Amino acid sequence: MNEGTQQAEPKRRGRRAGGEDTKAALLAAAREVFMERGYEGATVRSIAARAGVDAAMVNHWFGGKEGLFAKAVLQVPIDPNTLVTHILEGGPKDQTGERIVRTFLGVWDPIGGGQFAALMRSVTAHDQVADVLRDFFVHTLLKKVVAGIGTEDRPELRATLAASQIFGMGMVRYVVKFEPLASADVETMVKAVAPNLQRYLTGDIS
Amino acid sequence: MNEGTQQAEPKRRGRRAGGEDTKAALLAAAREVFMERGYEGATVRSIAARAGVDAAMVNHWFGGKEGLFAKAVLQVPIDPNTLVTHILEGGPKDQTGERIVRTFLGVWDPIGGGQFAALMRSVTAHDQVADVLRDFFVHTLLKKVVAGIGTEDRPELRATLAASQIFGMGMVRYVVKFEPLASADVETMVKAVAPNLQRYLTGDIS
Repeated sequence: MNEGTQQAEPKRRGRRAGGEDTKAALLAAAREVFMERGYEGATVRSIAARAGVDAAMVNHWFGGKEGLFAKAVLQVPIDPNTLVTHILEGGPKDQTGERIVRTFLGVWDPIGGGQFAALMRSVTAHDQVADVLRDFFVHTLLKKVVAGIGTEDRPELRATLAASQIFGMGMVRYVVKFEPLASADVETMVKAVAPNLQRYLTGDIS
Repeated sequence: MNEGTQQAEPKRRGRRAGGEDTKAALLAAAREVFMERGYEGATVRSIAARAGVDAAMVNHWFGGKEGLFAKAVLQVPIDPNTLVTHILEGGPKDQTGERIVRTFLGVWDPIGGGQFAALMRSVTAHDQVADVLRDFFVHTLLKKVVAGIGTEDRPELRATLAASQIFGMGMVRYVVKFEPLASADVETMVKAVAPNLQRYLTGDIS
């Protein structure tokens, strides 16, 4: 869960000594390259080269391209692939909606939602951020979620419907802060929202 | 539905001749006063005074404070109160979710979603906009929706849950544009989303 921070003092090869400056340079290079080339078009090699860092350090520090994207663009110290695997495979399929709500709130509630608001600000202010987020969603999360859902009926639509509920939960809880949802405890949120997510993923939507 | 545009050449009293300049001044003053005082604290009289316009013109052009807020802050030429009344009273209670989806898409689809994205940009970039939107939501829409829902079990939570789905639908359809949701036709959206909204409003959420 903390690839970005748990190894603060790596002693490995790399053209710069491992440290916060090197990581910051890598994250800045990653933001640039992801914006220029999109998620799919960006390579770890090109990002590392721009930062003057050995590509192996990206895997060492961030768990690869997805983790680097999460830290550089989403600005959360979490590998989204790990989360998605947990959500899809971490328990019974009929409790996937519940795992999504718990995971989402578990990531954003502790950091106060401010970073979710910052991400939404970035997404709404810069078309490039929306583009790269879409590219990332389509090329990584969507494929995994679709495979994980295992529903034959329009799995891509289901994944984007679930995304709509997840985005909206974040907007109302962390950005516009409509009460009582903004302060509702996790159990209340799970009971209210999880069945709706579950319907999108595996229920009848036609 | 078009208070802002259908009467382009009013010949009424007012310290300025009615026209686009006067309307623009009124909208600019409204934005300022709503941001300074919140939705509840702002008065039509104070907004009109700042613009040097007779307060009666606000009602004439915008259908009152709510319509003025919609045009100045939400930037849609629609009185939200009229919409909410339609949603809540425009048919059977068990089809409220469907009316919400149809109304929401009916407002934003024709204008391409760009204005929804602009509103979200404004909401995420300026705390004041989020504040005034919350104030407006709590003091007008929420009360109406809560009364209209008629569900005894936590109507305020239900209203904010519905808001979460509505915000999220807009974010995925108009801002991040995840396909296939972004291009799904209205009937597909109604079948998929309306039952979830309906559950929030009148179903079992505990």
